Amino acid sequence: MTITLRQLAEQARSASRQLANLSTERKNQVLLAFAKKIRENLDLILSANQKDLESADRLRSQGELSDSSIQRLKLNTVKIEQMAKNFESVAALPDPVGQVQLATRLDEGLDLHRISCPIGVLLVIFESRPEVVVQISALTLKSGNAVILKGGKEASESNACLFGILDKVLKEFTDLPDGTVNLLQSREAVSEIVQQNDCLDLIIPRGSNALVQHIQQHSRVPVLAHADGICHVYWDQSASLSKAMEIIIDAKTEYPAVCNAMETLLIHEQIPENEIKQLLTKLQEAGVEIRACSAIMKKFSNKLNGIIHASEQDWKTEYTDLILSVRLVSSHEEAIGHINHYGSGHTDAIITEDRSIAEKFMDQVDAANVFWNASTRFADGFRYGFGAEVGVSTCKTHARGPVGLDGLVIYKYKLYGSGQGVARYHEGGRQYLHQPLSRLN
Amino acid sequence: MTITLRQLAEQARSASRQLANLSTERKNQVLLAFAKKIRENLDLILSANQKDLESADRLRSQGELSDSSIQRLKLNTVKIEQMAKNFESVAALPDPVGQVQLATRLDEGLDLHRISCPIGVLLVIFESRPEVVVQISALTLKSGNAVILKGGKEASESNACLFGILDKVLKEFTDLPDGTVNLLQSREAVSEIVQQNDCLDLIIPRGSNALVQHIQQHSRVPVLAHADGICHVYWDQSASLSKAMEIIIDAKTEYPAVCNAMETLLIHEQIPENEIKQLLTKLQEAGVEIRACSAIMKKFSNKLNGIIHASEQDWKTEYTDLILSVRLVSSHEEAIGHINHYGSGHTDAIITEDRSIAEKFMDQVDAANVFWNASTRFADGFRYGFGAEVGVSTCKTHARGPVGLDGLVIYKYKLYGSGQGVARYHEGGRQYLHQPLSRLN
Repeated sequence: MTITLRQLAEQARSASRQLANLSTERKNQVLLAFAKKIRENLDLILSANQKDLESADRLRSQGELSDSSIQRLKLNTVKIEQMAKNFESVAALPDPVGQVQLATRLDEGLDLHRISCPIGVLLVIFESRPEVVVQISALTLKSGNAVILKGGKEASESNACLFGILDKVLKEFTDLPDGTVNLLQSREAVSEIVQQNDCLDLIIPRGSNALVQHIQQHSRVPVLAHADGICHVYWDQSASLSKAMEIIIDAKTEYPAVCNAMETLLIHEQIPENEIKQLLTKLQEAGVEIRACSAIMKKFSNKLNGIIHASEQDWKTEYTDLILSVRLVSSHEEAIGHINHYGSGHTDAIITEDRSIAEKFMDQVDAANVFWNASTRFADGFRYGFGAEVGVSTCKTHARGPVGLDGLVIYKYKLYGSGQGVARYHEGGRQYLHQPLSRLN
Repeated sequence: MTITLRQLAEQARSASRQLANLSTERKNQVLLAFAKKIRENLDLILSANQKDLESADRLRSQGELSDSSIQRLKLNTVKIEQMAKNFESVAALPDPVGQVQLATRLDEGLDLHRISCPIGVLLVIFESRPEVVVQISALTLKSGNAVILKGGKEASESNACLFGILDKVLKEFTDLPDGTVNLLQSREAVSEIVQQNDCLDLIIPRGSNALVQHIQQHSRVPVLAHADGICHVYWDQSASLSKAMEIIIDAKTEYPAVCNAMETLLIHEQIPENEIKQLLTKLQEAGVEIRACSAIMKKFSNKLNGIIHASEQDWKTEYTDLILSVRLVSSHEEAIGHINHYGSGHTDAIITEDRSIAEKFMDQVDAANVFWNASTRFADGFRYGFGAEVGVSTCKTHARGPVGLDGLVIYKYKLYGSGQGVARYHEGGRQYLHQPLSRLN
C-alpha cells in the first residue's frame, strides 16, 4: 500500500507524539535489535550495494561520478559491522530526553520544571554514504524523534535495503508507531515534503550550500545546516615550525574532502622565510597546490615551482581538495579580521605560544569551533566525545558545531500548581519566590 | 548623515563582533546609564508620546484603532519609571555570556570547552507598546548582541524619542561600537532588511501569525516567534468546582487580549451538570461569550441564554477577546487528542486531583508550557523568574516558551591543544580519553 507524501508527513507527526514518551529501555531494545538484524543481513546489504556500484561504474565511465564518490558509496564487511556497532554505541549513550534543566519554586505549591523533550519530526537529506541511514536512525530514535530520510540517488538500492531491515525490526515492536523512520527516494518527493510545514519541525540538509539555500527558500521549517566549511589556520610568529608543520599538514592533507579541512593558511610576516619555505615545500610534496597572496608570490615565486597567484575568489572558496590559499598577515588582528570577513564560521585555528593572543583569537573569531594549537580536523562529534553526530552546524541558533543527541532535543516547561490563577499575585497580593530547586537528575 | 539599510546591517554585524567581548561590568554600566537618562528625560518622553496619542485619537475617531491599542500606546510617569527599573533589573541578572556549558579532556593537553556566546545580530519587530524598545534593548545588550528594532507606526514618535535617549548614552561610551542598537521606522525598511541574510542571525517578530509567515517566506534568516496562542484548559472529572473556577476564570478573563489567555475549555462529561452550569454562568457574568459543542448545546441551550453553537473554525481560533469555545470530552485521552490537533503548542493546562493523569497530560500534550492545576496566564518570563522576556516562542528549535536572556545566546567550542593533528589518533595510535572536566563556573 502506498501512501501520499501528505499522509507520510502526518503519520510521522503522529508517530513523534508517541515516540516522545517511549522509555529509554524500550528505545535501547530497538537499537540493539537493529544491530542484530544488520549483522544477520550482511549478504543482503552487500548485494544491494553491488547494484548501486554497478550503476555508479557506468556513471564513472561517462565521467559523471568521481572515484572518491564511489569509495564513499562502497560498503564492505568492516563498514557493515561498524553500522551494527554504531547502533550499540548509541544505545549505550545517556538518554537526552527527560533531563531536568531548570527547577524553580515560583511559590509554595507552584513549582516550575524545564524538561528536555524531542523536537518532533526531522527531515534529513544526505548524499552518497549509505551508513548515514544507520547513523541518523540511531540518533533520532534515541532522542525520541520521528525521521524522514532522503538519501542520494546513487545509493538508492543500499539505502532501500538498510531501511527495509530497520522497518522490519520496527514492525516487530508492535508498540512502536508506524512512521517512526521513513525513507524518500526521489528529488520531487523532497520538494513536496518541505512544504508540509505543520508536520516538520527541523530540516537537516547534509549537502551543498546550494541545497541548503534552496530548502530555506522553499520551506518555512527551520533549517540546521552548514553552509561552507572555509576553515583557516593562522600561524602566529611565536610558534615553532615543528608545531606548525604537524597541525597544518594534518589540517590540509589528512582528509581534504571534508568540511573541517583547512582551506586558507594565514602566516605572520615575521616568520622566517626559510621556515615558510620548508612548510610550503612539504605541502607541495603532499600534492597540495598553493595559491598565494602577492607578498608570498614576491618572496617565493622564484624559489618554489607551481605557486599560483590567489584571486579574490580564492579566499572565499571551499576547495575540499588538495588546494590551499596562503596569505601573509602583519598581526593576529589582521588574521582575525580576514577570518571574520572571508570565513564561514565553521572551524578556525591559531598556532601560537602566546596564551593571551590565543584567547583573543578564540574570543574574537566568530566561528562554531575555535582552536588553539590543534588541527581543524578535530571539529567532529566522535572526536568531541558525543558518540555520534548528525552533522556540523554553522547556524547561530539552536545548535552550533558538531551536533549530537543534545542538538535533537528541545524542552517544555511543566508547572505543578495547586489551583492558582495569576490574579493572586497582583499588586498587594502574594509575591513570587523564584527559589531555585536543586536539580533532580 | 543617513546610511543605507545595507550599511546599517553591516554596521550591526561589525558591532556584534565587538559586543561579544564586552565585559559584564561595562554592559551593566551602560544599562544603569540608560536607566538614569530615561528618568532625566521623563518630560521629553511624555511629550513625544502625546504626539502619538493625538494621531491615534484621529485614527480612533475613524474607527481604525481600538481603545485597547490606545491604552497600550499610552505612557505615564509610572510606566516610564518602570522602564528605568527594567534596565536596572536586567543589569542585576547574571551575564548569560561566557558560561562553560561542557568541558571534556579529549586527551592530555587537548581540552574542549563549550562556552556560551551571543548570537550576533537580532532583528526584533513589534507593535504598539513603546516599552518594548526598552525591554529588548536591555536584554540584547546584556546578552552581547547587536539589535535592529522595528516598532509599530502608531508609536513612531515615542519609539524615536526612546531610541534617541539610548543612542545618546551609547555615544557617550566611546568604547561601544556604532550600530549597537538600531531603529527602523518604515515597513519598507523591514522588507529590505530581512533580505540581508549574511548580516542577520535571528529575527523575532512579535506580531500576528501573518507577519511571522511573511517573514519566513521572504528571508533565509531563522525566525523565533509564536504563531497563535490557542491555549486550552481541561477540567478533569476528579477536580472540584472551586479549583476549576479560579483557574478557568483567571485564564479567560484576567487579560483576554494576550497570547497565554485560554481560548478553549474542555470539560469531562462526568462533571455534574450543575457545576458546569455554575461555571458557565460565572463566565457569562464576566462578559464571556460561550461557543459550545453539540453536547453542551443540548444540555444547556435552554438553561443559559446566549450560548452559541461552535463551528469547526472556532476550535482553531485565537480570539484574544472575551469569547470561549467549550467542549465536552469523554476522557483525558480525548482532551489530549483535541489539544494536539487544534492547539498551537503554546500553553495548555489540566485541572485534576489525579497525579498520574496530570503527568500523562503534561507528557503527551505537545506544547511549550504544560500546566497542572494552574492558570495558563503563568506562561510568562517575569512569572517564571527570568527577569524579562523577549517574547514567547512556539518554535520547537532553539528556544521554546517564554524566552529570556538564555534564549539570546548560543555557544562556541574552544579546543586547547598542544600541537596535535588528528592523524595521531588513527588506528593503532593514541586513544581519546573523553574525560569530563569539572565545570569551571
